Amino acid sequence: MDSRTKRQVLRMIPHGLQVVTLRHGDEVHGYTSAWLTQVSFKPPLLALGVRAGSRSHRMMEGSGVLCLHFLGKDQEEAALRFFKPSQESGDKFEGLESAPGPATGCPVLTDVLAHAECEVLRVVQAGDHSIVVALVVDCAVHREGEPLLLSDTPWQYGG
Amino acid sequence: MDSRTKRQVLRMIPHGLQVVTLRHGDEVHGYTSAWLTQVSFKPPLLALGVRAGSRSHRMMEGSGVLCLHFLGKDQEEAALRFFKPSQESGDKFEGLESAPGPATGCPVLTDVLAHAECEVLRVVQAGDHSIVVALVVDCAVHREGEPLLLSDTPWQYGG
Repeated sequence: MDSRTKRQVLRMIPHGLQVVTLRHGDEVHGYTSAWLTQVSFKPPLLALGVRAGSRSHRMMEGSGVLCLHFLGKDQEEAALRFFKPSQESGDKFEGLESAPGPATGCPVLTDVLAHAECEVLRVVQAGDHSIVVALVVDCAVHREGEPLLLSDTPWQYGG
Repeated sequence: MDSRTKRQVLRMIPHGLQVVTLRHGDEVHGYTSAWLTQVSFKPPLLALGVRAGSRSHRMMEGSGVLCLHFLGKDQEEAALRFFKPSQESGDKFEGLESAPGPATGCPVLTDVLAHAECEVLRVVQAGDHSIVVALVVDCAVHREGEPLLLSDTPWQYGG
């Protein structure tokens, strides 16, 4: 199996782009995530791939909570804002409307299609990432629209 | 959180439609899967949501192998064939070109965009499904094309 073929095949897995926000004590952070799937109806569970050793990984393990935001097709800019390292982009939340989520305290962004507050049930090591199993505890729709796919953008995160 | 809102929000997670084939001893089976994400680059790991108590779950736990097939936008018919219960559709493989995969022995279908043979590394219980962590051990591209999304079809599997 050569690495070029592997990359080409694995990039056929459709992934969306979501903004994940985190709060651990006084620390607030957000990042753009691509690796996500539902894994259970009852209870409603999701699995996220989160890079091992990252700030996001540390924060969601420490706090046990996260908030997922689904972006619309026209929100590549929001995805880019949360994709850049904090050093480069400064305060990622600047100018964005947000409020602490009632279930988790994580910032809930309102200029998105929808959000889902989640509790972390389990963190399973998987190579250079972890699989974070998250229970949806609260959610809301903010507006209608089609979700932004990784394949709608010039970026890649897969292979 | 009312169940209608939850369903609407969780259906914003983009999912593809893949055909998973299985072999356990002399038993061969295939089904259409939607819940899949990559979870590691090195090694290349995937996470699949597989319904607890299903034939597919039992077979992949028993054999430790599976083969994923990525369908093209024009292959809703193939997705439907493997979505139906075997009792209803008869031999799901009838008339399809396939050969045992060199790495796993699972049937490799060739009229698809690409396939990936996988070894099951871990099965993590998650509500009414399990998260199956799969290592990609061999793969090939069969033709160019855009992958079939669940949202391209009239079906739903999410929420």
